[in-house]
Amino acid sequence: MENPGRAVARIIVTGGTFDKRYDAIKGELTFTQTHLPALLEQARVSLPLAVDIRLLIDSLQMTEAHRASVLEACRESPERSIVVVHGTDTMVETARVVGRAGLDRTVVFTGAMVPYSVQDSDAPFNLGFAIAASLTLPAGAYVAMNARIFPWDGVMKDKAEGTFKLRGS
Amino acid sequence: MENPGRAVARIIVTGGTFDKRYDAIKGELTFTQTHLPALLEQARVSLPLAVDIRLLIDSLQMTEAHRASVLEACRESPERSIVVVHGTDTMVETARVVGRAGLDRTVVFTGAMVPYSVQDSDAPFNLGFAIAASLTLPAGAYVAMNARIFPWDGVMKDKAEGTFKLRGS
Amino acid sequence: MENPGRAVARIIVTGGTFDKRYDAIKGELTFTQTHLPALLEQARVSLPLAVDIRLLIDSLQMTEAHRASVLEACRESPERSIVVVHGTDTMVETARVVGRAGLDRTVVFTGAMVPYSVQDSDAPFNLGFAIAASLTLPAGAYVAMNARIFPWDGVMKDKAEGTFKLRGS
Amino acid sequence: MENPGRAVARIIVTGGTFDKRYDAIKGELTFTQTHLPALLEQARVSLPLAVDIRLLIDSLQMTEAHRASVLEACRESPERSIVVVHGTDTMVETARVVGRAGLDRTVVFTGAMVPYSVQDSDAPFNLGFAIAASLTLPAGAYVAMNARIFPWDGVMKDKAEGTFKLRGS
Repeated sequence: MENPGRAVARIIVTGGTFDKRYDAIKGELTFTQTHLPALLEQARVSLPLAVDIRLLIDSLQMTEAHRASVLEACRESPERSIVVVHGTDTMVETARVVGRAGLDRTVVFTGAMVPYSVQDSDAPFNLGFAIAASLTLPAGAYVAMNARIFPWDGVMKDKAEGTFKLRGS
Repeated sequence: MENPGRAVARIIVTGGTFDKRYDAIKGELTFTQTHLPALLEQARVSLPLAVDIRLLIDSLQMTEAHRASVLEACRESPERSIVVVHGTDTMVETARVVGRAGLDRTVVFTGAMVPYSVQDSDAPFNLGFAIAASLTLPAGAYVAMNARIFPWDGVMKDKAEGTFKLRGS
Repeated sequence: MENPGRAVARIIVTGGTFDKRYDAIKGELTFTQTHLPALLEQARVSLPLAVDIRLLIDSLQMTEAHRASVLEACRESPERSIVVVHGTDTMVETARVVGRAGLDRTVVFTGAMVPYSVQDSDAPFNLGFAIAASLTLPAGAYVAMNARIFPWDGVMKDKAEGTFKLRGS
Repeated sequence: MENPGRAVARIIVTGGTFDKRYDAIKGELTFTQTHLPALLEQARVSLPLAVDIRLLIDSLQMTEAHRASVLEACRESPERSIVVVHGTDTMVETARVVGRAGLDRTVVFTGAMVPYSVQDSDAPFNLGFAIAASLTLPAGAYVAMNARIFPWDGVMKDKAEGTFKLRGS
């Protein structure tokens, strides 16, 4: 299914709750480094993946420049299957920027409601789900959360429930 | 994407390493009940799913009658997207039984090399990956492990490495 | 070693990092309920223990009234072995209030640098350590952290390192 | 409380359930290396400890020669506070060998009913409990499990319940 020695999918890391870690000295959740490599090892992934650690920020701090950088990373990706790990609060906005660009890429946004480093995190499930979606869906931008796949222009986050929903539903 | 009140995918549980639990009295890993509901809650799944706990056995103990029962469960499933959670040792054999039946269903087999109840399990990632694959792939039988999707007639388990590979590769 | 049906030690819960939980909706660590019962079950504790959930607050928010309430709880305890689960930031101050009272009780303060609900927490170890200390030390007030036992009037928290030290050392 | 640069307590590792790890290839719990260093780091231990990895076996496989080796390790320990991490099945037998020797040491036996590498293990709590007991109890041999301290000649394992009890109770 793939050429040996060449990545078949790309993961673009931007931070978000997914990658927050507890800082015992500060007593709060902060960003120090991504959990992606640990998670891929835990998942025993043998699919050749490229990992681009683009940002490590809370998605509430994302500016238009940051979103342009994510779009650029998608556009320049040699791989057509792309997962963007992103904070949930503004995931829909960044997906819209990528979706409107109409790239010939399958770009699947995912994240986590509970950090990977905290008990009962949704991060491993969500990453697995998003990678499979990126390998199988037609070109376009999607949000993949709660075991559901949403088109970029038909999704919203229900902040009270902490889940993603079809917009208007 | 779905009709309210109706499941859009089905998970058929058969046991395997995925669902082994440590029995502190016996001092060994055994089957008592599936971790599926806990895992779906942890993953914050909102996709309507039907869960069919068909078997809770080690896949080395699977007989042809067991495999026929899994095939039957797939055939009778009202949902066209199906994930079968299965032990890795004979996953390929059961996938072959289902694949040869040529059902008008997308049946994705997955499992785990490390039980969900043990540190650093691949179970949550694999389940997420398999559910997405079941929602997006065309009808057929597949094995989804190691972040890769294999057709039922082109896959083998490398027992020395504990990973799945294209047959002949 | 104990009379059946009667507790031999008491745990007074006040909150602190030990008991913080991740709130997925708010995206921050908060207090909802203590982890004490879960932790005692995990530790397979058969020692009859009384648990007094006195407070569930960050120790930076502790007032003199709060400390007086902890002292009162110690004074009124029917059990002579007492563990106080407390935030680390002002643990030494509360231990001083209890220590100066000169109770005929062994009161051992402990807490955690990493919440029980976060990966690699020191909470279970510290609780076990403190309970044993409360069963074996002579009457007095102590701080038990980092596998060390400190007298209440000879201990300080090194905030830069996140460890407790002999005062003056 | 201690001289800088010199250990104040010793941990003698013998294996047991405490240190079992899941081998994903074999699909079973085996011994590869002790979790002690990881556990001490997680517990943020600053107490100077010496660690002696004497054995890594199931306690059902312990011979009289093994027990003699544990006794020897206790006798030769420069530190007077000693914790022996041991399988629970024959912990009482080894404690008896050490107890009868009447060493001028405080030797506290502990272990785990659930491996450190499995969810909800009692290993961290038990280790913390045993270390505190080794620092505070008078010379003698003890079994410390279930948050209780038993003298070596008054303890039995209730195999049906998986807990330790006073002998005769």
